Amino acid sequence: MLKTTMVATFTNRPDLIQATYKLLSDKLIDPEKKARAIALGQTTNALHPSDSSVQKKLSRRQGEVLGIDERTHIPGRPYEYYLTVGFPPDNTEGDIPTLLTMIFGKISLDGKIRLETVRFPESFLKGKGPRFGIDGIREKVGEPEKPLTMATLKSGVGLSPAELGQMFFELAGGGMHIVHDAEILPDLPVCPTEERLAACLKASERAKIETGQLTLYAVNLTGPVSKMITKAKKLAKLGAQCFLFNVLSYGYGVLEELKEVGVPILANPAMAGALCGSTETGMSYSVALGTLARLGGADMAIIPSRYGPVALTMEEARTIQDRLTWTEGSMLKSFPVPSGDIHPGLVPEILQDYGKNVIINA
Amino acid sequence: MLKTTMVATFTNRPDLIQATYKLLSDKLIDPEKKARAIALGQTTNALHPSDSSVQKKLSRRQGEVLGIDERTHIPGRPYEYYLTVGFPPDNTEGDIPTLLTMIFGKISLDGKIRLETVRFPESFLKGKGPRFGIDGIREKVGEPEKPLTMATLKSGVGLSPAELGQMFFELAGGGMHIVHDAEILPDLPVCPTEERLAACLKASERAKIETGQLTLYAVNLTGPVSKMITKAKKLAKLGAQCFLFNVLSYGYGVLEELKEVGVPILANPAMAGALCGSTETGMSYSVALGTLARLGGADMAIIPSRYGPVALTMEEARTIQDRLTWTEGSMLKSFPVPSGDIHPGLVPEILQDYGKNVIINA
Repeated sequence: MLKTTMVATFTNRPDLIQATYKLLSDKLIDPEKKARAIALGQTTNALHPSDSSVQKKLSRRQGEVLGIDERTHIPGRPYEYYLTVGFPPDNTEGDIPTLLTMIFGKISLDGKIRLETVRFPESFLKGKGPRFGIDGIREKVGEPEKPLTMATLKSGVGLSPAELGQMFFELAGGGMHIVHDAEILPDLPVCPTEERLAACLKASERAKIETGQLTLYAVNLTGPVSKMITKAKKLAKLGAQCFLFNVLSYGYGVLEELKEVGVPILANPAMAGALCGSTETGMSYSVALGTLARLGGADMAIIPSRYGPVALTMEEARTIQDRLTWTEGSMLKSFPVPSGDIHPGLVPEILQDYGKNVIINA
Repeated sequence: MLKTTMVATFTNRPDLIQATYKLLSDKLIDPEKKARAIALGQTTNALHPSDSSVQKKLSRRQGEVLGIDERTHIPGRPYEYYLTVGFPPDNTEGDIPTLLTMIFGKISLDGKIRLETVRFPESFLKGKGPRFGIDGIREKVGEPEKPLTMATLKSGVGLSPAELGQMFFELAGGGMHIVHDAEILPDLPVCPTEERLAACLKASERAKIETGQLTLYAVNLTGPVSKMITKAKKLAKLGAQCFLFNVLSYGYGVLEELKEVGVPILANPAMAGALCGSTETGMSYSVALGTLARLGGADMAIIPSRYGPVALTMEEARTIQDRLTWTEGSMLKSFPVPSGDIHPGLVPEILQDYGKNVIINA
């Protein structure tokens, strides 16, 4: 619906980063003026540069209003606008943190405003996205076509590496392609990351002899941010096959660098409700867990679905999937891992919703 | 009001991290059951451990229900509950990222739930908080008592280091204690951080000769996360007096490590609206910009106020200030920098609201 109604007033500028905001207001506003305030306030911050030579110099750094969509007002409800603003990619360092500050930094504080979609110029996408992607993950587990399966080492904090190893073995015995740590299990003296990596890799080998299926262990990567990449490299040397990563607890900046380590990344949506849970503020799940997770390099992304307690609408769930898998520059695709109260009875529905490029998170 | 009504069913456990959630529900729920699900789901994840020896082992890792506050239901409005859950600090790595995953990771996705307050055991606070704090900043600018003043190099992206230096000189000439970069200005070839640092430090020296007042330059710290600390150290060697830091674009994990560099930190609230803008989901401004910013080491925190476009209530604004400045373990206090359309006419009101320990952000 968004796309249809916006065509009329939409200027396509594929050389710019294009962000669409939903704006709710109790009063009728001038949406064009508001969009211009965002376009300038988030770039050159110069609403009225007095000096014309400065003005010229600043002009190529300024954001531009690309789309205005004013919805029919329903009495008793807020006025609703969709504003699309284009931002020069060169105003960022090419990374997600400076991108976020530009497109949704100060402006996020400006009342009922929600970041709905972001599109990027080809130039910005260069070198971005997953390192392995859907095909790469399929190759690692030796399953070229069918949906993959995933399970969680449910117990969070408290079990020993040996106990987790045993649990891993039991889950892997069911023929799972991937088994991952609980996202709440960090690197604790009672269960150090390196020790549970060793225990679960061993369990994976044992299980493979029985099932013939390689089960990847996604170990939860945690720790001081400035040493995260060094730590990840060490774990890779010790055989780590996959990292579970709480992207929002650590920041997209870490995700972007983590990708260079060369180990597949399974993005966990911890904290995402805080950013995306409101329909009036924050950002859409499809931006946070779709667009940005893929851009940052997540090979697989655990996402809320329309089945579980988060209960997204069909359209929201589909949009997240789209952002992970649609064609976007030359970026590889990320595997959607819909989650939340998934039980075997739901499998036909999941396959109908997601097709075969899905990981069933049991 | 929260505190008063909660006393009746509140167990104080100062050895635990105590998180209070607001929960809204269209249906009447069993709040105790819900709180227990959070307490277990975010720690041991073991609702019904079958083995009693495992149960015993897990018990000290489990969260505990500490407070239940069910508000009087108003017909036509959602049911409202305040749940306080205690979490073992040893379930984290002692840092904010693993803290966040524990207290508001998966659970943030669970409908209308908002993290309202977090309290910490003394043990968790050890070594935490600002390195300089209010007194340290006062010492640096040589003003032991009166409110401080701050200004922004308003122009975002587009000006050269020399132009910014000139702008700095003009602002410093007004006798400002601190002048900071726009948060949207990253490290770009057109205006490299090191060059604008040199230009603004020079301008600061020139201005000091005229005014007698040292004006600190808060340079915007940006860049790849894994190299951020190395970069900050280099800038410190080049004379950096203060870092402006977009905490939420980069993550609290970076803030925590940045503090060790030994340069005062001015936290910018970019992105905070995305986390805190809803009253139904996300977290309160006082948690994100008060509690966590101070815990992570922000010496000064730019915060929304009740004056500007964000228009917090008096109580919300006061709570943020409280969290920055109240007694909490042995942590130093952070300087509140209320912002948003601050003009000279507001100064008496700001002083009445904040007292003398405030920075006026003109």
